[in-house]
Amino acid sequence: MAENRQVLIDSLPEDKLSESNYRLETTPIPEPGKDEVLCRTLVITVAAGSRAGLQGSASYAGGPNVNVVMGGTGVARVEKSNSAILSPGDLVVCGTGWQDYSVHNADGLLKISDDVDPAHYLGALGTNGLTAYFGLLDVGEPNEGNTVLVSAAAGSVGHMVGQIANIKGCQTVGITSTPEKCQQLKAKVGFDAALSYRSEDFRGELKDTCANGVDIYFDNTGGDILGMALRRMNVHSRIVCCGVVSQYDTSNPGAAPTGIPGLLVNKRIRMEGFLIFDYASQFETAREEIKGWIKSGTLTPLNDEFDGLDKAPAAFVDLLAGGNIGTRIVRIED
Amino acid sequence: MAENRQVLIDSLPEDKLSESNYRLETTPIPEPGKDEVLCRTLVITVAAGSRAGLQGSASYAGGPNVNVVMGGTGVARVEKSNSAILSPGDLVVCGTGWQDYSVHNADGLLKISDDVDPAHYLGALGTNGLTAYFGLLDVGEPNEGNTVLVSAAAGSVGHMVGQIANIKGCQTVGITSTPEKCQQLKAKVGFDAALSYRSEDFRGELKDTCANGVDIYFDNTGGDILGMALRRMNVHSRIVCCGVVSQYDTSNPGAAPTGIPGLLVNKRIRMEGFLIFDYASQFETAREEIKGWIKSGTLTPLNDEFDGLDKAPAAFVDLLAGGNIGTRIVRIED
Repeated sequence: MAENRQVLIDSLPEDKLSESNYRLETTPIPEPGKDEVLCRTLVITVAAGSRAGLQGSASYAGGPNVNVVMGGTGVARVEKSNSAILSPGDLVVCGTGWQDYSVHNADGLLKISDDVDPAHYLGALGTNGLTAYFGLLDVGEPNEGNTVLVSAAAGSVGHMVGQIANIKGCQTVGITSTPEKCQQLKAKVGFDAALSYRSEDFRGELKDTCANGVDIYFDNTGGDILGMALRRMNVHSRIVCCGVVSQYDTSNPGAAPTGIPGLLVNKRIRMEGFLIFDYASQFETAREEIKGWIKSGTLTPLNDEFDGLDKAPAAFVDLLAGGNIGTRIVRIED
Repeated sequence: MAENRQVLIDSLPEDKLSESNYRLETTPIPEPGKDEVLCRTLVITVAAGSRAGLQGSASYAGGPNVNVVMGGTGVARVEKSNSAILSPGDLVVCGTGWQDYSVHNADGLLKISDDVDPAHYLGALGTNGLTAYFGLLDVGEPNEGNTVLVSAAAGSVGHMVGQIANIKGCQTVGITSTPEKCQQLKAKVGFDAALSYRSEDFRGELKDTCANGVDIYFDNTGGDILGMALRRMNVHSRIVCCGVVSQYDTSNPGAAPTGIPGLLVNKRIRMEGFLIFDYASQFETAREEIKGWIKSGTLTPLNDEFDGLDKAPAAFVDLLAGGNIGTRIVRIED
C-alpha cells in the first residue's frame, strides 16, 4: 500500500449519526518534517465522547468541520523518523485519526512496549483503564469483602472497575442496559451480579441484590441511578463520581437526587469527583501493575473489535447505539 | 433552697412554641439510690433540636408527653454520692433537664475540670464544639490561606468553625440571617466577612466575597445555600456535610441542588458527611486542645446567656426565633 486511506467527515448528523456521514478518500502518504515521525496506524479506538464534537452549528466559530479526517486516538508504528528520540519500528500512542498514516512531532508521543497486545493501550492501559484504576483504588478505597456497585458497567471504564474490584476481593454488581449485556457482564467480565436499569422493578432488584448494602458506588451516570444507589449505601461508604452519562445528551439536566446532603450526613458517606489527569505522575506505575495482571491472566480486559479502517464508521454508530462490551476498537493493520 | 424547682411541659405547641407551653413547679429534692448521685444543676443549654421532640400527635405511641420535666443537657455539681467514682463537689455533664436537682447513676457521667467556665462544656467543649473541631479539621482538612465558608455561622457549631478556621490561618466567610448578625459575626466571632442569605443579591455577594473561590464549605443547612456554594467551590475543594437545617422543619424536603455529581467531577470536589459520635475515642484529646486555646485567649467561644431557671422557656423561644449568637445557655446556680 503506497497511499493513505482516510475517513473524512462528509456531513454533520442532523439527528442520529449514520455511516453515510462519513466518506473514504485516498491521499498521498505525508512526509515527516524536522523532529517529526511518520506513523502507520495499527489500531484505533472509537469513543462515545467524540459524538459531542459533531454537534453544534457550523455557523459558530470553533464548530465542527466537514471534509476533515475524523479525529481519534490510536496505536501506531513509527515508519520514518527525523527525530533522535524515536526509531522506525517503535510503537506509540498518538492522535492518529481515522487514517492509515499520520505525521507527528516525536516529542510528547507515548512510546509503548510490545509485550502485550498494543490495543490494550487504548483500553486497559489507556485513559479508560487508568480511570477505573485510580477511581476505584484511590477514591473508592476498596477493602476485601466490600460490595462494589458500578453503573455503565459494560463500558470501557465500568468493565475494568468490575475486574479490578474482583482482584481486590470485592463483591461486584454491575448495572447496564439490557438482560443480554447482564449475561455478558457475568460471563465475560466476571461481575458477581448484573442488573438492567430498564427493568420494571430495577429499584427492587437493586435492593435485593445488594442485600448487605453498598460500600462503593462507582458512578458513571448520575441522575436517577445515582439517586437509587444513594439509598443503598452503607455507613462510611464511598461514591466515586466519575462521569455523568445521563446528562451528556441533554441541555436540560434534571434535578440532583434528593437526600443530598441529608443521607451523606446520616450514613457518613463520602462522595468525591476525580479527573484522571491529576494522576499523570503515577500513570507509569499503574500501567505496570495492570500489565502484570493482564500477563498473569488475573485481568482480562475486553476489547470489542471491528476489523478494517472502512468499518470505523459502523463501529462508531454501533457504539452509540449501546452495542459494546468493553473498549470498542478498530484494527487497521497488524 | 430545700426544694426542687422544675420546668414542666404544660401543653404541646400547636404552631409556634411559646413560654405558656411551660409551667414552673416545686417538688421535694430526690434522694440518690445505690450507685447514684444527687446533682445540683449549675447551667443548662437549650438547643433547637429539642423542638422536634415537642412535635407529633400525642395519639401516636411514643409521642411527646405533657406534665414531664423538659429534657436537656447541663453541667451539675455532685451534692450527695452513693458511688465510689464520684464525690460531692465533683462537676459532671449530664441530662439534668430543666430543674434544680436530678439523680443519676454515677457510671457514665462525664466528670469535668473546673479550670474553665463549666458552661464551655455545653458549647466549645461539648458536642457542638467537637462537631466544629472534627468536621473542620478531619473532614475539611484546612490549609493555611484556604477560604472557609460556613453556613448557619452564628450557631453553636458555626461560630466555632469560624474561630478554629481562623486559628488555622484561613480566610473565613460566614453566612447568617440578618445584617445585625453579620456585624456580630465579624466583631465578636472574628469572621473576615459575613453575608445575609436573606439579602436580595445574596448570590452576587457570595461570588464577590469569595472572589478566589471556596476551599472548604462547612454546610449546616443544605438546600439552596448548598447549591449556591457548590458553584463557588475551587478545584480539589471539600464540602463538609454537617447538618441540614433547611430540611429539619419540613416533611417535604426540596430537590437537591443541581450540578451533583457533574460539578463534583469537573472540580474534583469531595463532599463528605460525618457524625461526631464516630470520633468518641478522640474527644478527650480534642477537648484538651480546645481548652488550651480558650485559656490562651486564642479562641473566644460565645455563650449567649440567660439567667435563671424560670427564664429557660424564654431562652428557648428566642433561640427558635433565631435570636442567638453562639451557644444558648441558661445559668441556674453559680
